[in-house]
Amino acid sequence: MTSPPLPAPPASLRELRPAVARECLRLESTLLRFGAARGQSLLLAVSGGGDSTALTVILALLAPRQDWRLHVCTVHHGLRAEADAECGQVQRLCAALHIPYHLRRAPVRELARAAGTGLEETARKARYALLEEVRQQTGCRWLLTGHQREDLCEDQLMRLLRGTGWPALGGMSDCDPERHLLRPLLHLSGKKLRQWLRDWGVPWSEDSSNDDPSFLRNRLRHTVLPLLEKENPAYGDSASRLRQLAQLDAAYWESTLDAALALTPWQQTEESITLPRALLRAHPAAVRLRLYLRALRCLSRRHGGQARAERLLALDAAWQEGRGNTRFQFPGGLVAVLRGGAVTFGEDGGA
Amino acid sequence: MTSPPLPAPPASLRELRPAVARECLRLESTLLRFGAARGQSLLLAVSGGGDSTALTVILALLAPRQDWRLHVCTVHHGLRAEADAECGQVQRLCAALHIPYHLRRAPVRELARAAGTGLEETARKARYALLEEVRQQTGCRWLLTGHQREDLCEDQLMRLLRGTGWPALGGMSDCDPERHLLRPLLHLSGKKLRQWLRDWGVPWSEDSSNDDPSFLRNRLRHTVLPLLEKENPAYGDSASRLRQLAQLDAAYWESTLDAALALTPWQQTEESITLPRALLRAHPAAVRLRLYLRALRCLSRRHGGQARAERLLALDAAWQEGRGNTRFQFPGGLVAVLRGGAVTFGEDGGA
Repeated sequence: MTSPPLPAPPASLRELRPAVARECLRLESTLLRFGAARGQSLLLAVSGGGDSTALTVILALLAPRQDWRLHVCTVHHGLRAEADAECGQVQRLCAALHIPYHLRRAPVRELARAAGTGLEETARKARYALLEEVRQQTGCRWLLTGHQREDLCEDQLMRLLRGTGWPALGGMSDCDPERHLLRPLLHLSGKKLRQWLRDWGVPWSEDSSNDDPSFLRNRLRHTVLPLLEKENPAYGDSASRLRQLAQLDAAYWESTLDAALALTPWQQTEESITLPRALLRAHPAAVRLRLYLRALRCLSRRHGGQARAERLLALDAAWQEGRGNTRFQFPGGLVAVLRGGAVTFGEDGGA
Repeated sequence: MTSPPLPAPPASLRELRPAVARECLRLESTLLRFGAARGQSLLLAVSGGGDSTALTVILALLAPRQDWRLHVCTVHHGLRAEADAECGQVQRLCAALHIPYHLRRAPVRELARAAGTGLEETARKARYALLEEVRQQTGCRWLLTGHQREDLCEDQLMRLLRGTGWPALGGMSDCDPERHLLRPLLHLSGKKLRQWLRDWGVPWSEDSSNDDPSFLRNRLRHTVLPLLEKENPAYGDSASRLRQLAQLDAAYWESTLDAALALTPWQQTEESITLPRALLRAHPAAVRLRLYLRALRCLSRRHGGQARAERLLALDAAWQEGRGNTRFQFPGGLVAVLRGGAVTFGEDGGA
């Protein structure tokens, strides 16, 4: 990996090939549509890999047009020897582009040991916590990440493997207002982004852990995904559209559940949520399963864990049979208890 | 392949291991729930492969309990040298089980040449046409096929590759009343069915074309599917559950669209369907896309072809922008025309 002391990325959209400039302008309108309004401050999460490096260069080209104030943050996980050099490279790029640079360190090994969690999961949690901290410190409205189409494909396959239901099966969203998170590159292929960087003479660092076959994500990237792309070279487009359809359905289900709960409200206390018999009887299985899921999600903000479709189907089958005093365990120490046609979700022991 | 002159399959559920007998009884209640009522005649589509051979033996065990009258039909495609021997083997099994046997021949090569279609697609169409004919001739209420869990997994992957939306992504259904079609083995693995046949000493013929890598289905079976099963040994269960969730959602969308169309009905002539502005404005994108799809399906019963999510999304984007006098082509020679906020579907040239 060559890293010249000061990269010279393009200074204006006019320096790009017309087709690339058009893609950048499309990205600009996507960001505006998501709510990244003119004059806002935006924080970019940049590891120094091809995706986030491309994100940085593209946003630097768009920022003057929309008066966006950019910040860049790298989280150093202390896991790989090359990380220092990678941070240095991001810092040089930011200097060349006049973007304020923020370096944060997460002692991932120590954190993982203390919490008894895996390195990958610990790194992800620590990274997002630090990025959120920097977002607030810098007064940024949004955090932008470099997730692209291959990441989306992997995410969908992992969800398919786990037996995730719909619309969650569609994969990560390009706009998550609750987490102030935007993924504007999600419809673009990483190969294309790297080609742009090569054309522009901007160096990047390929993270060696992306090839580590001990991570499921990497195994899918290097084995299953190439087979699917061989069968359908436009598979990435299919995956993008599946995500798009999933987001439309997610919005539909949000408002449909809101409406259902407004008509026959649930009973919520600090520790439990009860879906009354009248509410459940008013709706078909497709709605009931999503009501269970919403109740579990409300409670699991404190408890963590993710309900599997299998358990939700078993719960609903028991409800349909009219079983009473039956308990179903869910992740995060939660249970569902059937009683008189109502279902109460709560902590195990509490409900 | 050994094929003894008269196989001696188990004569009663009592001869089976208890766990296997329980699975057969579960299959019996599934069939009853689908509407295969006591005393009905059922036609089994049997190629002589492991799946349909197991279907035959299991149904022969259940038939006396429910007074089901069984018929078996094999469609000989005239494509493989072994097909004559395979038909003979099915015939011997039926003789041993006292099930009336029907052999039909489809001149697939000639049909494909005449219609200019692929062998696989031609064989499938000809097979189902002949099976439907035999179903009516024998007065059978249902046609049962031997599709099992691996078939379902392959089907889901092919749909994922093609960019199929939800709930169609969930794959083939286990109960299709419109086609009088039941797939009672869809939740069982082919490996398990073959193990049962071995235990019972019932021979079957493995269709050599199942290994032919010129078919997408076989490539997925031999490359992608084993990788997914390696990552999650219970992947087949996940696929089954996804199908189950999809069927619940399909039922939901059927009745939701019915209700939407009952409030603001569409205009339908012999050649076209118009979704009026008031109807489309009353619903979010998730519903509008499915209304387009339903209109196209109504018309394509005569015209064939399947709309891709990409085109439906493009149509809806144009509708949202309020574009007028815009045409969108769809498979089967169909078009959608936007005019004054309404969308009219019809034959190209006709609408």
